[in-house]
Amino acid sequence: MSRPEESDTAGLEGSGGNAGYGSRPFKRSRSHFVDRITRDGRDGWPVEYGRYRLVVSRACPWASRALVSRRLLGLDDALSLAVADPIQDDRSWRFTLQADGRDPVLGIRYLAEAYEAREPGYSGGVSVPAIVDVPSGELVTNDFQQITLDLATEWRELHRAGAPDLYPEGLREEIDEVMDGVYRDLNNGVYRAGFATGQREYEDAYREVFRRLDLLSGRLADRRYLVGDTITEADIRLFTTLVRFDAVYHGHFKCNRNKLAEDPVLWAYARDLFQTPGFGDTVDFDHIKRHYHLVHSGINPTGIVPAGPDLSGWLTPHHREQLGGRPFGDGTPPEPVRRGEAIPEAGRP
Amino acid sequence: MSRPEESDTAGLEGSGGNAGYGSRPFKRSRSHFVDRITRDGRDGWPVEYGRYRLVVSRACPWASRALVSRRLLGLDDALSLAVADPIQDDRSWRFTLQADGRDPVLGIRYLAEAYEAREPGYSGGVSVPAIVDVPSGELVTNDFQQITLDLATEWRELHRAGAPDLYPEGLREEIDEVMDGVYRDLNNGVYRAGFATGQREYEDAYREVFRRLDLLSGRLADRRYLVGDTITEADIRLFTTLVRFDAVYHGHFKCNRNKLAEDPVLWAYARDLFQTPGFGDTVDFDHIKRHYHLVHSGINPTGIVPAGPDLSGWLTPHHREQLGGRPFGDGTPPEPVRRGEAIPEAGRP
Repeated sequence: MSRPEESDTAGLEGSGGNAGYGSRPFKRSRSHFVDRITRDGRDGWPVEYGRYRLVVSRACPWASRALVSRRLLGLDDALSLAVADPIQDDRSWRFTLQADGRDPVLGIRYLAEAYEAREPGYSGGVSVPAIVDVPSGELVTNDFQQITLDLATEWRELHRAGAPDLYPEGLREEIDEVMDGVYRDLNNGVYRAGFATGQREYEDAYREVFRRLDLLSGRLADRRYLVGDTITEADIRLFTTLVRFDAVYHGHFKCNRNKLAEDPVLWAYARDLFQTPGFGDTVDFDHIKRHYHLVHSGINPTGIVPAGPDLSGWLTPHHREQLGGRPFGDGTPPEPVRRGEAIPEAGRP
Repeated sequence: MSRPEESDTAGLEGSGGNAGYGSRPFKRSRSHFVDRITRDGRDGWPVEYGRYRLVVSRACPWASRALVSRRLLGLDDALSLAVADPIQDDRSWRFTLQADGRDPVLGIRYLAEAYEAREPGYSGGVSVPAIVDVPSGELVTNDFQQITLDLATEWRELHRAGAPDLYPEGLREEIDEVMDGVYRDLNNGVYRAGFATGQREYEDAYREVFRRLDLLSGRLADRRYLVGDTITEADIRLFTTLVRFDAVYHGHFKCNRNKLAEDPVLWAYARDLFQTPGFGDTVDFDHIKRHYHLVHSGINPTGIVPAGPDLSGWLTPHHREQLGGRPFGDGTPPEPVRRGEAIPEAGRP
């Protein structure tokens, strides 16, 4: 796909504090580690069963793309998973959800240690998603725009039987175009609204957020998925923003023209995906709410985490089957989520 | 009515800054000036045509009660009106909406000057609603719980022809009881949620807010008004909180289980009142939004005012006439709002 001008590393989910929240307009900094894990290993990192570890925060929308892709493609065994604490400290993402504070596979306390192993003296942002080479402990990539595309295409030999094609060749141009607008106005647009330091800058972002939502609502009124009649990478990237909308973007980021739940089309579309195996079973609303409201002290200095919204609506019927569509194309849904990766009750609707 | 334990003076709408927002649980301080303007003038302040000036902020829910009562009762000429700037400075409410920064009748720049005239050296909070004696320039009362009851009963001789009885004798016990719960859990409950300094304190208030809203939603499902079949003081006091709910309490005060607009009964009830002459024509959403988001810098340090919510729903049909009810009893609606008191376009849905 065409690379958006801004990408992630030291952005919000990056460096643990209020990066991006300062006196200048919010700008997502460029990825630093852009090696790719490929079938032919041309960057030195061949696709290999069990060799790599995906490090995410379930709070982070950029990392959550990889969580969904991994599930849909059945890479659960081939690519193991480390889930960071949703609350970073001044050394950024850490493995304090583990009893001993260390990731059991990598043996590290902070994701920053894998960055340091890759580039001694590295002082830039530490972001998720990150893929770490287990034998060497080195970070391979934190390039969130490329990781999921590679999971969909380069990792194909390790996909489960019945895995969908999330980036089908014949539709890539259309997928890229849709994702480009979604990235600019929504995935990143909500951050531009939330981290705006001036009223005008905020209102510009707000306008683009809702203009894009309205366009998408129109597009999805009579088609089940964004491109073609199956789930693609474009749906994954829209989902990860929509699923956070009412919980954090509406209030905390002031994207409050209306709730997602007030747009019948987008709300049904988002519920449809949420209820599809591989989507909702990766979402931890508790991590999402605590991360945004506790980490961004420049926006929410009291540190109080809203008790709402009522999440029960996520499980209500969406009736989108009536639009047809074949969620997994000629494939099948993934198996239920593996033991140890299930979302705790506190994070579920 | 029975007096709630906490009442207003140096509370939020009171003293201009973040009063009430500190390290202790939010508590509304007791009113200081509780003289009453009565028919018999027993406190030295007899009801008199044109003698007094009502000072309000259209942002303030406590003051807005008096705005609605004055309109419904047709006291527009008998009791003149001064509207303060929604943004206080360190000397509290001020008349900076006027070109020369002075109230044209009282000749003062700050409401505090009327407090000072009444009690030289006064150093407590300055709150609205306030009623000022025009000849002496002295504050008479800032007792927001009593002012509207007195407008409804003591000022009866000056009411317009066709004015409703907002506090009918036979229903006072029921009205008082309803208002008591509404005050504790809603009128003041949203402030306890918004100004909470700890998670537990916030969640307790949040729970009470929505418990009370659910009770009221049940009560209003098959009756048009809260008590009897006409508009009473109880409806006024519920309205002033509901009309602010989605604009400020939902996001800014984190009362976000659901929007008012997501509760079909309360949303229709609120729209019914909004569209009744004397209610919606007193509401300035621009004043409301700017006041809360700009004044409470402890909650919203960026000072960015949300562009939402979409307010157009306030003018949509509510269908509550189907429940019967006689809005003004044997009376009639008030005349259209007088010239000079109309809400500017920026504040209207």
